[in-house]
Amino acid sequence: MHLEDCESPVERSCCLIELDANDGGNYDIVNDVSSPAAGDCCSRQSSARHNWEMNYQEAAIYLQTFVLFVQFIEAIVVLVRQTSHVRVTRALRCIFLVDCRYCGAVRRNLRQIFQSLPPFIDILALLLFFMVIFGILGFYLFSPNHSDPYFNTLENSLVNLFVLLTTSNFPDVMMPSYARNPWSCVFFIVYLSIELYFIMNLLLAVVFDTFNDIEKKKFKSLLLHKRTAIQHAYRLLITKQNPSGISFKHLEGLLRFYKPRMCARDRYLTFKALNQSNTPLVSLKDFYNFYEVVGLKWKAKRNREHWFDELPRTAFLIFKGINILVKSQAFQYAMYTVVAVNGIWILVETFMLQGGNFLPRDVPWSYIVFLTIYGVELLLKTTGLGPIEYLSSGWNFFDFLVTLFAFLGLLTLAFNMEPFYFIVVLRPIQLLRLFKLKKRYRNVLDTIFELFPRMASLGLTLLIFYYCFAIVGMEFFAGVVYPNCCNTSTVADSYRWLNHTVGNKTVVEEGYYYLNNFDNVLNSFVTLFELTVVNDWYIIMEGVTSETSHWSRLYFMTFYIVTMVVMTIIVAFILEAFVFRMNYMRKNQDSEEDNGIVLEKEIFKEEMVALTELYKINCATYEVAQLQKIIAQMDKYEQPSMLFLGRRSRTKSDLSIKMYEEEIQEWYEEHSRKEEYQQRQEALPSSSNNPLKPLGLRQRSQTVI
Amino acid sequence: MHLEDCESPVERSCCLIELDANDGGNYDIVNDVSSPAAGDCCSRQSSARHNWEMNYQEAAIYLQTFVLFVQFIEAIVVLVRQTSHVRVTRALRCIFLVDCRYCGAVRRNLRQIFQSLPPFIDILALLLFFMVIFGILGFYLFSPNHSDPYFNTLENSLVNLFVLLTTSNFPDVMMPSYARNPWSCVFFIVYLSIELYFIMNLLLAVVFDTFNDIEKKKFKSLLLHKRTAIQHAYRLLITKQNPSGISFKHLEGLLRFYKPRMCARDRYLTFKALNQSNTPLVSLKDFYNFYEVVGLKWKAKRNREHWFDELPRTAFLIFKGINILVKSQAFQYAMYTVVAVNGIWILVETFMLQGGNFLPRDVPWSYIVFLTIYGVELLLKTTGLGPIEYLSSGWNFFDFLVTLFAFLGLLTLAFNMEPFYFIVVLRPIQLLRLFKLKKRYRNVLDTIFELFPRMASLGLTLLIFYYCFAIVGMEFFAGVVYPNCCNTSTVADSYRWLNHTVGNKTVVEEGYYYLNNFDNVLNSFVTLFELTVVNDWYIIMEGVTSETSHWSRLYFMTFYIVTMVVMTIIVAFILEAFVFRMNYMRKNQDSEEDNGIVLEKEIFKEEMVALTELYKINCATYEVAQLQKIIAQMDKYEQPSMLFLGRRSRTKSDLSIKMYEEEIQEWYEEHSRKEEYQQRQEALPSSSNNPLKPLGLRQRSQTVI
Repeated sequence: MHLEDCESPVERSCCLIELDANDGGNYDIVNDVSSPAAGDCCSRQSSARHNWEMNYQEAAIYLQTFVLFVQFIEAIVVLVRQTSHVRVTRALRCIFLVDCRYCGAVRRNLRQIFQSLPPFIDILALLLFFMVIFGILGFYLFSPNHSDPYFNTLENSLVNLFVLLTTSNFPDVMMPSYARNPWSCVFFIVYLSIELYFIMNLLLAVVFDTFNDIEKKKFKSLLLHKRTAIQHAYRLLITKQNPSGISFKHLEGLLRFYKPRMCARDRYLTFKALNQSNTPLVSLKDFYNFYEVVGLKWKAKRNREHWFDELPRTAFLIFKGINILVKSQAFQYAMYTVVAVNGIWILVETFMLQGGNFLPRDVPWSYIVFLTIYGVELLLKTTGLGPIEYLSSGWNFFDFLVTLFAFLGLLTLAFNMEPFYFIVVLRPIQLLRLFKLKKRYRNVLDTIFELFPRMASLGLTLLIFYYCFAIVGMEFFAGVVYPNCCNTSTVADSYRWLNHTVGNKTVVEEGYYYLNNFDNVLNSFVTLFELTVVNDWYIIMEGVTSETSHWSRLYFMTFYIVTMVVMTIIVAFILEAFVFRMNYMRKNQDSEEDNGIVLEKEIFKEEMVALTELYKINCATYEVAQLQKIIAQMDKYEQPSMLFLGRRSRTKSDLSIKMYEEEIQEWYEEHSRKEEYQQRQEALPSSSNNPLKPLGLRQRSQTVI
Repeated sequence: MHLEDCESPVERSCCLIELDANDGGNYDIVNDVSSPAAGDCCSRQSSARHNWEMNYQEAAIYLQTFVLFVQFIEAIVVLVRQTSHVRVTRALRCIFLVDCRYCGAVRRNLRQIFQSLPPFIDILALLLFFMVIFGILGFYLFSPNHSDPYFNTLENSLVNLFVLLTTSNFPDVMMPSYARNPWSCVFFIVYLSIELYFIMNLLLAVVFDTFNDIEKKKFKSLLLHKRTAIQHAYRLLITKQNPSGISFKHLEGLLRFYKPRMCARDRYLTFKALNQSNTPLVSLKDFYNFYEVVGLKWKAKRNREHWFDELPRTAFLIFKGINILVKSQAFQYAMYTVVAVNGIWILVETFMLQGGNFLPRDVPWSYIVFLTIYGVELLLKTTGLGPIEYLSSGWNFFDFLVTLFAFLGLLTLAFNMEPFYFIVVLRPIQLLRLFKLKKRYRNVLDTIFELFPRMASLGLTLLIFYYCFAIVGMEFFAGVVYPNCCNTSTVADSYRWLNHTVGNKTVVEEGYYYLNNFDNVLNSFVTLFELTVVNDWYIIMEGVTSETSHWSRLYFMTFYIVTMVVMTIIVAFILEAFVFRMNYMRKNQDSEEDNGIVLEKEIFKEEMVALTELYKINCATYEVAQLQKIIAQMDKYEQPSMLFLGRRSRTKSDLSIKMYEEEIQEWYEEHSRKEEYQQRQEALPSSSNNPLKPLGLRQRSQTVI
């Protein structure tokens, strides 16, 4: 099983085929980027890299084989003994899951977690060290108090201080000693100040820092790697006739391999977009923009502005009026007012209800009124803007969905479809529209959307840990807790389930904690989520411990530490993303609207004709047909030229380039210096068996991984 | 009362008198730094600033007068009514406390808190918005379940979701609905994911970002301000005879005013240290280092290496041997081993005790053995290094203190002084010595020491908030909770105090929460600390609420939000400090030992003689006597010259200069461009009543504050 990212193929750095810059925030490079000189050591390098790839794959195969072997042995043991036993190895199953093509992000996360571990463990040791010191102190100070169950043995003292670290037993753990001597609160205040408010933050800082550093290193490697690749490609593509640049013919050849599905028109547009000097050749300086330009999606710029431009005069005027109306500020704010009034209405209505008959059988008129308004808004916007333009905005799409839901809710109410009543309950979600009002909120939501893929992969990573722990928990603790269990423990109350008869009424006194069990996977997941939230987790721990053994605590404490690592990384990630975005916004306050990257290029008819001729010579009939269609279109509208828009969304790489602008220049200089040095070394009469060289290469790639 | 920092005197930017770079991490500038041109607008600028200072002071006086007035009215009301009433204005008392010279840092913190408020409030609104949406949803979903007391009214629903935000009632709040329908856990998981794990982190990110930004802005202002001041001073100090630099005579004159207590020798050394070109004049480029050099503390470099160098031969050899021994790695590691063994010993010993007779009346032999070893170590180190060198290291000083404490503990045991037994209990603190072992831990501790002044001021700020809330709490809630109160509330158990008689034993069933009251200031502070830690805070809130009114919740919720702001800033501060330091360490991996900034300068005897002559001419008898003493010393050891070491500790400003190296150059360029522009403007024939100018100045200073 390879934790290393193996999606990057071996040929990448040399042949420029698959490195696509549109990776949406995930720098997709890893172990093959360290090699600073790809210029003329292609074969040697690729073989070195190949070796490593082989190593990883071998390691992965060994690991999987081992797991399979263990599971096989286990299966035999079960067969021989004819009885099931604790099958913890089931927890290892997810290893097979992670090792698939679609879990690349999860593997990356796991790697990042393992990379942050060394400094994390250092600080964790500090944390535990203070815990031991305070544990001993606490034992000496509070064990003479016999009404204090928290510090009566050293083990209890340590366990309770561990729980106190999560604040989960505070202030209860303090109360018995505080009742006897008020000054004992100093012990707890000092402990919490050091451990919770200082060292835990230190943990966050360390992870945050490691995380940022790794991100930046990755970005730098990717950037230099791209540069090397471009340089090499350039050197391959220039010819003796044209030593100063790449001709269209050769660029076209490159693109045919790099992006096989790109059409002839786009290839020519790419050439034009790259070629900023308007000469027939693309210089190296222009060619450096290759990755930025090649990702653009090209589209002919529409001639007509609105969908109704070609309708008869009267209709045109009506739609034009609607268009102006829905685009006006007044209309926008009127709608915000309606949503706000609706929000207050819902709030007041709910406040008046106060329990009981909370789902009215007949449709309330306010519902109909507001829904009508939203419906009219929807209608106006769709007709005024045209359905395609309307739905192209994410916010409008959201409005559309919410209104649709509200309409479905109305239907369920009108036709009494009880199972769908939950739709009615979703009404308050309409208030989310108010978010559009403020720029900061829009930014927050945009960031959420940007973060989403990465968050999802982090969530998946967390789920994998959950799965492992759920399996182990089910093996050891399934069926362990039940109503009225744990009577010997200090948390017995939370598991009690009694029928009192007070007067003539039967009152059920329920401590629901028996529900937090490991009886099946779903229950385990909920229990583990409760442990993640941390509050009152010791009740679950003590309950299980009282029914099994002291060693069960190890499970819960390990789980706490593991989730702490993962959650810290999630927090660090969210922090990093937002701080990054806020910094970026501060640097680019002028560019208010962030519509991605757009480039405009004009193509004249003559160019098209010449291009068609070129393809005709090469007998590329498919391309010729495509181009002729465009020429026909130009003829139809009698235009001498046509405008094309190239568009792509802004990736994190674009943001990073803006952010590190100054440093990037330094990196480039350092990089070219290194390369020169390397080339000079290569130029030296090579003593064919220089033993240091491959070692050097190997070492370098080891340090970066 | 002025929240603005008014310690920076009016003359500062012009006269270069008080700006001292050794401010240990606190950039001490504020409202007067915005003026980019101090070159030749000294009087106008200082008057503008003077105006502002006056405004602040006036505002402060008004505010204080108002508070006094309110308190006076109140006193009269009390006198007339002859009875005390709710005197909330006592909470305002701390305003008088903050407005003193020593609370500058607290005022700065308060300003920083108020500056971070606008973005904070935005995100807080987002948080509350989602809370309302989920409150309504939760009410609709769970109020039909009559055994669910958490969502039966909209108010309860909102309050419980607020408490859930602090995780303090989780998983209890989920259990009744979870018991009825397992899928209801989705509601809580989604709520916690959005609110706790996302928006709360967003809050942290926003505060962190604002904080960093303010720090950087402050640093930039201070830097440019210093530069302007230096330029202006330079222009004042060059003469027509020497237009290319400052002569010693004039620098000496400046230093006499800038640092009146600096002795003649140090003034000359400052001149020599500034003058890197070794010409008789200090150029502007050299003079730019003024603030860095003037902070150095000069000391003659010792000729003898050890304190025992002048002892007779035999003694010298013995001490030399000890010196080599205590400096050896082996000795160090032997001591670490002893400490580790001691630690394990204490742990095992404590483990064996298990309650009961835990303070042995007779001194245990292990105590004596280890203490003897530590005593011998102390003795060896003191004799081998000399007491002064020994105690100059913070770590040695710590060792010394710990050993001293252990010795005192031994004495208390030996002489049975019961009240001092707590010293014996402090034994585990010796384990802290192990920290020296690892570089990362040393860094952590160094950072703690660096952070300490700032942390203390933040702590003080928190205490001021505590005080205000404690007073308000005492006024409203004193005597409200007591044993067996709150029987009508859901948290009655926590306040119960019963004497059971089970069999022939009397068991006291104690819910200690009645101890968390507002009866006096100390109790209030402990209660507020418990509210800060947040766990189970709703028990305190519900207890007080059940005895008073619903509106009491406002107090607790406000307190939660206020402490959340302050704690977030503390967290942001710790994060920033550590991340900064780690970045710095990464940039300067070569300079392992961080002994502050050291500069070495040699003075020849001839120079000294010439200097003495110069002072003799000026009849400065005191300085002449000082210098002659040094010459006499040189004569005694027959040296032609003497070496002096200038030393100062590294401040945050030094670190920042290293960190922002590249940006600083940009700032300087921008600054000089602005200045030139300003000078050109000044050079224009000024239309004496240009109404825009003072406005412009004013605006600029407003934007920076």
